[in-house]
Amino acid sequence: MIILGIDPGIASCGWSVIEQELRIKNLELRTDKSKPRIKNQELRTIDCGVIKTLQSETLGRRLGIIGLELEKIIQKFMPTTAAVEEIFFAKNVKTAIIVSHARGAVLLTCAKMGLDIFEFTPLQIKQALTGYGQASKNQVGYMVKNILNLKDLPKDDNTVDALAIGICMAHSVRR
Amino acid sequence: MIILGIDPGIASCGWSVIEQELRIKNLELRTDKSKPRIKNQELRTIDCGVIKTLQSETLGRRLGIIGLELEKIIQKFMPTTAAVEEIFFAKNVKTAIIVSHARGAVLLTCAKMGLDIFEFTPLQIKQALTGYGQASKNQVGYMVKNILNLKDLPKDDNTVDALAIGICMAHSVRR
Repeated sequence: MIILGIDPGIASCGWSVIEQELRIKNLELRTDKSKPRIKNQELRTIDCGVIKTLQSETLGRRLGIIGLELEKIIQKFMPTTAAVEEIFFAKNVKTAIIVSHARGAVLLTCAKMGLDIFEFTPLQIKQALTGYGQASKNQVGYMVKNILNLKDLPKDDNTVDALAIGICMAHSVRR
Repeated sequence: MIILGIDPGIASCGWSVIEQELRIKNLELRTDKSKPRIKNQELRTIDCGVIKTLQSETLGRRLGIIGLELEKIIQKFMPTTAAVEEIFFAKNVKTAIIVSHARGAVLLTCAKMGLDIFEFTPLQIKQALTGYGQASKNQVGYMVKNILNLKDLPKDDNTVDALAIGICMAHSVRR
């Protein structure tokens, strides 16, 4: 499965493309009753980055850029599933409203391109990566680096978050 | 000019297409110094309606429906300008967040289709129609009906609001 992880934002919209390889163990004919074990932790980063828009542009144009760039990414990597971070309501209302515009543009683009969309709260993402819903940015970054075997973390925080969302999606798949 | 007025919403997204005819008076050669007078109040309703989505659908699919229906409307009537209502911040935060998703989808669609986008607050719209920013729904409806010479107002409130936004756009054009 190829997963598109997205951390929506107007100025910076982080994205990641992660491949989840399925390794099926014990699939040969067996006399014992053990089930075939599917290990779904094999994750590979295909690419990641951030879509940036300028504050000097109109809101319509900024959303247009996000939509078009996202379309290009989907056309290039052909993910089947999108994982999008949910809004954390307790934050500043104005921020929540502006991020919601970006989320609307992101969700519309993914829906039109035929992706299955899943949404995760920041708490779910932290929980999936570190086992602790209140984990710090550093703890999440540390886990992203380890799980994906990255030499270095991307410098952009939104890109790291997009990788974390992709991992959360992969870990949520029950097989 | 053909104006697309939009009152964004997830469950009901009102839309209107209004034509603004320019009647230029006194354009013959004149010896007096009077300027040619352009009367830009000639408004004609081409069509209007509401895009509805079901609560049982996912957010992604609801935004997808809004985007696709809006594209069809734009392809059919070829408006050059979109007028979109702004969020009224003082309302319920959850409502503002969900409407912002719809606005994001609407603005992205209009931007991708090459429309010039203008945004108006509810206060600006009421002011433009009735001269009073705190006008009631009934007062706005009465003015919409009169300005556009409608026999009856559309039953759907979001459609009436979309017509009001279109009129506000037309009245804002300074020539």
